[in-house]
Amino acid sequence: MFKREKIPYPTVERLPVYYHVLSELKEDNVGIVSSGDMAVRAGVKASQFRKDLSYFGEFGIQGLGYPVAHLIEKIADIMQLNVDHDCALFGCGNLGRAIAGYSGLSRWNFHITRIFDNSPEKIGGKFGGVIVEDVSILPRNLNVSIGILAVPAVSAVNTAQLMVECGIKAILNFTSRNLDPGHGIAVRNVEVTQELAVLAYHIARNF
Amino acid sequence: MFKREKIPYPTVERLPVYYHVLSELKEDNVGIVSSGDMAVRAGVKASQFRKDLSYFGEFGIQGLGYPVAHLIEKIADIMQLNVDHDCALFGCGNLGRAIAGYSGLSRWNFHITRIFDNSPEKIGGKFGGVIVEDVSILPRNLNVSIGILAVPAVSAVNTAQLMVECGIKAILNFTSRNLDPGHGIAVRNVEVTQELAVLAYHIARNF
Repeated sequence: MFKREKIPYPTVERLPVYYHVLSELKEDNVGIVSSGDMAVRAGVKASQFRKDLSYFGEFGIQGLGYPVAHLIEKIADIMQLNVDHDCALFGCGNLGRAIAGYSGLSRWNFHITRIFDNSPEKIGGKFGGVIVEDVSILPRNLNVSIGILAVPAVSAVNTAQLMVECGIKAILNFTSRNLDPGHGIAVRNVEVTQELAVLAYHIARNF
Repeated sequence: MFKREKIPYPTVERLPVYYHVLSELKEDNVGIVSSGDMAVRAGVKASQFRKDLSYFGEFGIQGLGYPVAHLIEKIADIMQLNVDHDCALFGCGNLGRAIAGYSGLSRWNFHITRIFDNSPEKIGGKFGGVIVEDVSILPRNLNVSIGILAVPAVSAVNTAQLMVECGIKAILNFTSRNLDPGHGIAVRNVEVTQELAVLAYHIARNF
């Protein structure tokens, strides 16, 4: 039996990549995929893919590969991708608007149901069908677990604090600030500059 | 002596995080930082931080910690952050504009010097001081190593191909498409939905 407790963090980080690859295969009506093919598509080693899968059961069919539809369901179950997740977006600048307009979110059952900003010009406006609300009059409890932080860096720490105060349990942080919002709050950082730095390193090594 | 060849990939991925934390400490005039403090700020274990640093030398001062300014310089040197990097941005929608207007890039010596789009309404316009050019009349060689891909998913693969053809060696991919642009081309994916999936997993485990 699958024991959720045992799954190491790097595996958890790779599961969405596998899910994404499997979804593309399913769209192409592929029924079975080999670990080698999966590995290439996901950018990992085949042994890594097999190891990651082994944390939640035996799925491979000897000499054939992995049944795509079954594996998608299993990963969706583990990652909670088969239930709807409401998200609150904080910051409605170019980046916030790009996120609000991104169709990929709803394909994975993520829905931006609340948008907050501090600009009078934006408050009351609508993005992706959601009205922009005033961040200074946040309700006591949003009843939303996931917050997306897309405010200017200078407002990042204060806004993250507000998010936690109104019940947000997980923050996707697009600012350049490191956040330390307290115990039990999960944070994922998306930092363009740091990603570019990794690329710069590769270029320096190759040339 | 530091041997660049020996640095494992996960360490390379963490170096920009350390660089970012150290930069913040330097701004706050912190001269020395302990591995414990660094670890908390960077979201890793102290032993991991020490191990990562050990790949490029001995920096700790017994009983004191790490000299901030020296470590910043060293990481900048390894990651090539002390030289200017020109970047070409492909796609000038909300996301592209958010990237072009992001001040954090130039602080790390990344500069968007070319912007391409396929929309007649955008071509000829200006973002972040750079004129938007027609992607259909790309020059044979851009003389730019790093490309940022911020086009709609449906155009991702074709645009990545164009990027490689005009000499780009590393792609920061903001689309939901997995890219396989060929040997020697580095790719980093920034996928909002996959990041949200990792957060959803954490929420499911904690509550």
